Amino acid sequence: MNLSSIGEFGFIKRFSGKFDDLLGPGSTGIGDDCAVIPVEGDGELVVSTDMLVEDVHFLRDKISSYDLGYKSLAVNLSDIAAMGGSPVASFLSLAIPPDLDLEYMDCLLDGYHDLSRRFAVPLMGGDTTRSGEKLVISVTILGKVAKGRARLRSGAQTGDIVAVTGKLGDSAAGLHILLNSLGCEGVNEQLVAKHTKPEPCVKEGSWLATQDGVNCMMDVSDGIASDIGHILNRSGKGAVIDLNGLPLSDELRTFCSDRQLDPYYFATSGGEDYCLLLTISKDLFDSVAKAYSREFSTCLYPIGQITDGSELTWKKDGKVLAKGPGKGFSHF
Amino acid sequence: MNLSSIGEFGFIKRFSGKFDDLLGPGSTGIGDDCAVIPVEGDGELVVSTDMLVEDVHFLRDKISSYDLGYKSLAVNLSDIAAMGGSPVASFLSLAIPPDLDLEYMDCLLDGYHDLSRRFAVPLMGGDTTRSGEKLVISVTILGKVAKGRARLRSGAQTGDIVAVTGKLGDSAAGLHILLNSLGCEGVNEQLVAKHTKPEPCVKEGSWLATQDGVNCMMDVSDGIASDIGHILNRSGKGAVIDLNGLPLSDELRTFCSDRQLDPYYFATSGGEDYCLLLTISKDLFDSVAKAYSREFSTCLYPIGQITDGSELTWKKDGKVLAKGPGKGFSHF
Repeated sequence: MNLSSIGEFGFIKRFSGKFDDLLGPGSTGIGDDCAVIPVEGDGELVVSTDMLVEDVHFLRDKISSYDLGYKSLAVNLSDIAAMGGSPVASFLSLAIPPDLDLEYMDCLLDGYHDLSRRFAVPLMGGDTTRSGEKLVISVTILGKVAKGRARLRSGAQTGDIVAVTGKLGDSAAGLHILLNSLGCEGVNEQLVAKHTKPEPCVKEGSWLATQDGVNCMMDVSDGIASDIGHILNRSGKGAVIDLNGLPLSDELRTFCSDRQLDPYYFATSGGEDYCLLLTISKDLFDSVAKAYSREFSTCLYPIGQITDGSELTWKKDGKVLAKGPGKGFSHF
Repeated sequence: MNLSSIGEFGFIKRFSGKFDDLLGPGSTGIGDDCAVIPVEGDGELVVSTDMLVEDVHFLRDKISSYDLGYKSLAVNLSDIAAMGGSPVASFLSLAIPPDLDLEYMDCLLDGYHDLSRRFAVPLMGGDTTRSGEKLVISVTILGKVAKGRARLRSGAQTGDIVAVTGKLGDSAAGLHILLNSLGCEGVNEQLVAKHTKPEPCVKEGSWLATQDGVNCMMDVSDGIASDIGHILNRSGKGAVIDLNGLPLSDELRTFCSDRQLDPYYFATSGGEDYCLLLTISKDLFDSVAKAYSREFSTCLYPIGQITDGSELTWKKDGKVLAKGPGKGFSHF
């Protein structure tokens, strides 16, 4: 049987359960943004790993090596943020094709180093090897979180408000600009920057995890249409998402309006926004949102609500657009 | 400038120092078998990561997918063993080429799972992605060790006895057999098994780290000619290694004698033995070796002695064979 016929998540399902009985008490294994491992004292360890493969996750002629180094760490920091953790250490493995020169790799490490410094997270190890022809970058990140404070995908409660911490779709539009060589001036430049240098919400995640009422968090990596599905599956819930509530940047609106593209396509199915997707108890949403605004001078954007059942309903202008179990839809 | 002109360790040196000021107190970063991260309570975390690339580290038609899965974890367990740690969790990332079918990947996970079970170490996360054409396997492993008990490469003291915990060269001979399609019967089969299913010395490493006098440990991955160089560089010492002391298996002797090959070439330069290379205070060597024999029903093999200076001297039959600073030699 072919792997593509069952997909990434189907493949993972084939073996993930086998390791369950090896898990220690209080641990969370495969299936969340990070694994959670209790350690002595008041803390828990959160660990995540991401592999970036040339021509699958990035095109070498569409992103500078500096940005690629930066982004390799950023997407991992985002996983720590999604648990409400603080980063402790990173590990970087590189399979390097023979045509890459030292200058390219120095710049990649510069980008990685500059972001490491901003978040005070040391690179503590890794592996370096030759590759046939494609650059492969694998980063593992360790973080810590106060015991019981890691925010899992399984925590959503019926009635919770679903919210995001940032505008959606800019990164996907940036990728669209790069892939179609639309030019990187003005608005386009800003959208491309959202794709190549995403800002991990480490401080925001860490703060949100301390707030009562924040029941569930993850980062927006595949696009909310897919990402919300993970929360619903893990929590055993449904949701109603209102497209009118999705925060869209002026840049995305301008870009889409100029080209008669649908901004909601980018906002729901594009992914790589690396803001946080979370659910908050209805009663506490207003107070958390106000405190969040005071703390970060920006908004928590409510986009829907968790329901009983397992159905995901998409609404716009008061009408139901689509409805179905599981992962929602990938295109309007 | 080309990467191959400065080599893996030259490349790592270009950036590793930059992260030093981000390291927390009591931490060990890049340059040992594992990073060491202090955690609350009486423990320290040890972390290592290894990337295996098809056609660089393995040939798909020379190792079964079961053994490849087993070995991917084994080489990482060996790094934990080298620190004297106990494994806590592993993370597995896979870049899978489109021609690999589900049966191949199921077997790979079976091999990984069976070894995980033997050492009671859960797979707690990872990443799965498409690859262009080569299979890439990246494993990260976390372990724990009692505070101050991690055995670093920098701990060798003048006068220490250099020892290994197992026979040397079998794995390299096994690789030679596979690459030259020499057939896998009899002695050959046993040597090939040492290459494809190495036994990580987790219990041995963990026990040795509790013994007074064990100053320094690492695992034999590149071959002792290269590996001892890392100990000398990190410890600021020299050493005399006596080839007559190197433990060679009967299988290796038979194989080499039949083909007029030099067993010492395999034993020093081949690597992938994944036994432990350690240094022990001269005064305590006999008692540690005796206790080790009682505990594991096998020997600690003394192969040389740590000296002042930085020179590595190779002796055989009472004569000096080679002498020089740094990493020794790669061939006799």
